[in-house]
Amino acid sequence: MKRVLVTGASGFIGRHSLRFLVEQGYEVHAVARGAVPPTDLVTAHSCDLLDDRATAALIRAVRPTHLLHFAWYAIPGKFWTAPENLDWAAASLRLLRTFADSGGRRAVCAGSCAEYDWSEPLLSETTTKLAPRTLYGTAKNAVRSCLEHAAATLGLDWAWGRVFFLYGPHEAPGRLVSDVVAALVAGNRIAVSAGLQQRDFLHVEDVARSFVTVLDSDLQGALNIAAGRTVAVRDVVERIGALTGRAELIDIGGRAAPPHDPAALAAGIDRLTTLGFTPRYDLTAGLAQTVEWWRSRAGA
Amino acid sequence: MKRVLVTGASGFIGRHSLRFLVEQGYEVHAVARGAVPPTDLVTAHSCDLLDDRATAALIRAVRPTHLLHFAWYAIPGKFWTAPENLDWAAASLRLLRTFADSGGRRAVCAGSCAEYDWSEPLLSETTTKLAPRTLYGTAKNAVRSCLEHAAATLGLDWAWGRVFFLYGPHEAPGRLVSDVVAALVAGNRIAVSAGLQQRDFLHVEDVARSFVTVLDSDLQGALNIAAGRTVAVRDVVERIGALTGRAELIDIGGRAAPPHDPAALAAGIDRLTTLGFTPRYDLTAGLAQTVEWWRSRAGA
Repeated sequence: MKRVLVTGASGFIGRHSLRFLVEQGYEVHAVARGAVPPTDLVTAHSCDLLDDRATAALIRAVRPTHLLHFAWYAIPGKFWTAPENLDWAAASLRLLRTFADSGGRRAVCAGSCAEYDWSEPLLSETTTKLAPRTLYGTAKNAVRSCLEHAAATLGLDWAWGRVFFLYGPHEAPGRLVSDVVAALVAGNRIAVSAGLQQRDFLHVEDVARSFVTVLDSDLQGALNIAAGRTVAVRDVVERIGALTGRAELIDIGGRAAPPHDPAALAAGIDRLTTLGFTPRYDLTAGLAQTVEWWRSRAGA
Repeated sequence: MKRVLVTGASGFIGRHSLRFLVEQGYEVHAVARGAVPPTDLVTAHSCDLLDDRATAALIRAVRPTHLLHFAWYAIPGKFWTAPENLDWAAASLRLLRTFADSGGRRAVCAGSCAEYDWSEPLLSETTTKLAPRTLYGTAKNAVRSCLEHAAATLGLDWAWGRVFFLYGPHEAPGRLVSDVVAALVAGNRIAVSAGLQQRDFLHVEDVARSFVTVLDSDLQGALNIAAGRTVAVRDVVERIGALTGRAELIDIGGRAAPPHDPAALAAGIDRLTTLGFTPRYDLTAGLAQTVEWWRSRAGA
């Protein structure tokens, strides 16, 4: 019997993970602070994980064997420095401990490429130094380090998926792909940076499916969740222009790049590849599907 | 107005800190889970800091300007690997956030030499890598890293005192000095390791007073709380033998050293010295005072 509790189940990755978990034979318990998208295949729970007592009651009621922990503070533009990172680090530590105490066996959590020293040309789980520059990356790394050192005592199998860049349906406004697609589908102009930064983009369904692959494996420790190849941000924007037929609405260079933005963030994906995972979407197919989703939303 | 909340106020360092805080002109609020040693000079609060709601209520009631955070899981022999380290990391993050939200200005927390990479000959705040090998050191370092990256956003001044080895009145059983002194004062035999390890010992009153010195300064970041010189553990034991006149009860080498015990742990104390702090006890005077305390207890 595999009974998984998915936190952040109404969030960007979490909501996409549910069907893959069902496909893999899990009894799925989806938890979110607000409403979880309704489905016949999962059991939805409303719970504020920042409330320790509510979390403990939920874990006691569900008694999950597996934990897939996506919940965190994720407001675009604010999450890098928000004090809520402390709350979510604390809540994650308590959640992991409560999960272990109630008989949980395997926990897989969402980490971030922001845990790494971004000055290295290829970010690798095995060789790159962990030196986060932001509170967000620091708080994620703090939880990971505690889990790593506590896992044996807690009797937990564990893995930690470091997410790079992702896009797709249900992405929040205020992020690159969501803002560009939404603007072009609506016929609005949009200014973007010069876009010379090389980034590793993976479609959110592939991100979610890779987390399920990791959960269903016996891989231990940290691994990168990424496509394994980078593309210039400008190239992403131009593909969206071509797919929407509204390239003329894009003002490339009309907006400054964020300060201290590294030229390239490339992910080594040996560990993910070892699990036999291959993405279903390449970048063009993924962006096309994303554009279609925004069009269907605009038409709805 | 300086109003300090001291956590772990019935613990080894905390209880010794109270009178130094009073001497420095603080309005002192001492909190512990159980009873705080009664005194006319401080306000005692009973609160389980692992209970977020109780902690929030306490902070709202006291509205401290300063926080001196000693509370942690500290059972000798167990604290290195205990899962309670996760609870205290989580509780510390919540405490710091709540303190900042209620107008707190300066937080000083007890860290540990266990945060450092112990393979270096001199452990320095400025040059030694942080690479804890234990859950205890990892959890302390996790809190420190989050505080460091959150302090500006939270509007907090902060410092982090890394405690090395300490001894003195009220030390819990199960530790070197407390066990040796208690045994010899009671006339019992005691087996110790060969004791070749070099360690930096500081009397607990000096440890407590150095934390108060740090709190009352504007020093930011981490610093070592130590004497700045090492002594062989065997030398400590032999001095206790001489002070008690019961050296013949000590079986040196009758017990194995802990596995992976490093040969030396030396502390750089430049930052502490910069504050003008000098210990009141040298090792012999400190041990003599400790022996007297155990004798008075045995006679009570």
